[in-house]
Amino acid sequence: MGGMSPLDASQAERRARILLAQWAEAGDRALGRRVGERGAHTVVEEILTGRSPLPQSTGVHARVRTGLTYDEAVSRWIEATWTSAERMGARYIIPGDSEWPSQLDDLGDAAPLGLWVCGAGDLRLLALRSISAVGARSATAYGESLARELGAHCAEAGWLVVSGGAFGIDAAAHRGALAVEGATASVLAGGVDVPYPRSHADLLARIRDAGVLVSEAPLGGAAMRHRFLTRNRIVAALSRGTVLVEAAIRSGGRSTVREARELRRVVMAFPGPVTSPMSAGCHVVIRDEGVHLVTSPREVLALVEGRLDLQEHAATQPEDPLDWRARRVLDAVPARRPAPLASIARLAGLGLAEAMTALGTLDALGLVQRAGDGWARHAA
Amino acid sequence: MGGMSPLDASQAERRARILLAQWAEAGDRALGRRVGERGAHTVVEEILTGRSPLPQSTGVHARVRTGLTYDEAVSRWIEATWTSAERMGARYIIPGDSEWPSQLDDLGDAAPLGLWVCGAGDLRLLALRSISAVGARSATAYGESLARELGAHCAEAGWLVVSGGAFGIDAAAHRGALAVEGATASVLAGGVDVPYPRSHADLLARIRDAGVLVSEAPLGGAAMRHRFLTRNRIVAALSRGTVLVEAAIRSGGRSTVREARELRRVVMAFPGPVTSPMSAGCHVVIRDEGVHLVTSPREVLALVEGRLDLQEHAATQPEDPLDWRARRVLDAVPARRPAPLASIARLAGLGLAEAMTALGTLDALGLVQRAGDGWARHAA
Repeated sequence: MGGMSPLDASQAERRARILLAQWAEAGDRALGRRVGERGAHTVVEEILTGRSPLPQSTGVHARVRTGLTYDEAVSRWIEATWTSAERMGARYIIPGDSEWPSQLDDLGDAAPLGLWVCGAGDLRLLALRSISAVGARSATAYGESLARELGAHCAEAGWLVVSGGAFGIDAAAHRGALAVEGATASVLAGGVDVPYPRSHADLLARIRDAGVLVSEAPLGGAAMRHRFLTRNRIVAALSRGTVLVEAAIRSGGRSTVREARELRRVVMAFPGPVTSPMSAGCHVVIRDEGVHLVTSPREVLALVEGRLDLQEHAATQPEDPLDWRARRVLDAVPARRPAPLASIARLAGLGLAEAMTALGTLDALGLVQRAGDGWARHAA
Repeated sequence: MGGMSPLDASQAERRARILLAQWAEAGDRALGRRVGERGAHTVVEEILTGRSPLPQSTGVHARVRTGLTYDEAVSRWIEATWTSAERMGARYIIPGDSEWPSQLDDLGDAAPLGLWVCGAGDLRLLALRSISAVGARSATAYGESLARELGAHCAEAGWLVVSGGAFGIDAAAHRGALAVEGATASVLAGGVDVPYPRSHADLLARIRDAGVLVSEAPLGGAAMRHRFLTRNRIVAALSRGTVLVEAAIRSGGRSTVREARELRRVVMAFPGPVTSPMSAGCHVVIRDEGVHLVTSPREVLALVEGRLDLQEHAATQPEDPLDWRARRVLDAVPARRPAPLASIARLAGLGLAEAMTALGTLDALGLVQRAGDGWARHAA
């Protein structure tokens, strides 16, 4: 990339990432690592000249004939893309762009190489405060009504409602946000120019107008089965919190929950009747995966904003505004002199992270304060 | 009590406890402590002779005229009781009796002085494997159907179904047990000879025939408001596990949950629709009080029996038979040499008790084993 100006370099990097996204499986870690080390432009050249150390599993060797020059590759693979992008008004954003949501970097080597974005909103700004609502396509009336309420409440409070544009929970959450003229984003498994499902073409057009359509898939790319799973990691990474609204035991939504947990996002689920198979997935993640049980959109925002909503608690639990962990931790903070986190956690019988979270809550409530290296009761 | 034979002594103690139960508030700790130290007979004599150090709050000073002899007190307060007891076929059991359920001693000074028991079953034997089902009087069809199923499933598996004989959840749980000709016990707030609510007279008669009616209230005692709360501690203490089936935010069932937690029983709750006020209490205890979410009677028994029911899990969660705590603990057990509990808990980010529970589970599954003072992976 010897004599290129910075602008050229950035454009070259962008074109190279578009090429790689067409050639490789989405989220491939070996490719992500190599791109992080060498830059996409170099990785493309390595591939074209047959010198690439990337494994077969990336898919690039099967798709790209070596011996092509860089310009030939660009004209062969990208020409049509630029035309579609212009027609569609779509832009391709990559790390370093002002619209790039930096939270996607939490995905590490599995971060998308870039994202096609289409719509009125600025993805980075919108996603600073974003909640994703995920769940079953074959949702019940109960689940759809919760999703719609969640979408409306969050959007009204100025949060971006992220989902996947699918039938059921996804569509209900998007529609809830649209109903209050809020912002919503759909992360698609296929190209942003490929309405999927087809009967959601109108819905997706409204989402584009009121927010953004987002996808790492090439323009024109079909919504293929394996892309739904890789897409879920983007939904999870983009959002500060993920809510599983309704899900069967085997459900794509649970993969989003798993991704969100691994990314240490706030992960929540609505319970439902134990007699409903569409709530069984929610109950399992609440019980076995440490996912927060939530019963209202207000609780969702309270959790994501990391505040204890005292009013909410006053309404639901008059005797006791603190959860049991916070109470145990408060009991473990000595009345007179400060104690270190480790000893407070031990006394409370909690892990360090749990104790730290509880101390944060208690601090916010003015019940404890940092003192030197430790924590003390707040001076009255 | 100079020259009394052991039999006399035991009878004197029994009579004295019946007297004290008539005079004092149920569950009074000051009285319980004094009786534990001196024996009920001495405590009665102290009261009759005006030498009792018990506080006014016990209620005894307001109810008992000093100067009465022991025999006068017995004839005045107990004569009618013996008659009722004989007519009813009721017996009064006290600690040390072969029918006394020793788990009641977990209540310490708040343990009942004795219990009136009426019915075919032996309370101690029945209560060795017992589950209590508690919840709202104004239950929904959803809650009643869960309670009935729970009662039937537990009774069929040979467990005693304990509840309070009230409308709603209580009655449904009792009826579920009766429907499969299982054993069920009703712990009443009034006397075992006072059918309450009156319209449950037939139900209570069936419970007596198929199990037992139990109460610490004197025979003939009315089911007064404050007695419902003190009664709940007996329900909790008697049972190995307590299930909150359906409950509003403010609900007597939550006091049973609190008692059961303090007694370190297995405490469980069924989730329900977040739109149902009758499930709100269940959701709060699951979220804020560390109560287990359960979705079926099978899960209830699996939890109470302290086993991980792999078949249940296989049906609901194929990828992962262990809960997240157990997985973290398993990861924290070193592959080669044993590690002490404290270091395993620290590595897993869990409290000692939680880590110990998880190790128990893993041990039962044959994945870890005790080694010296610590724990190791199970030798393959």
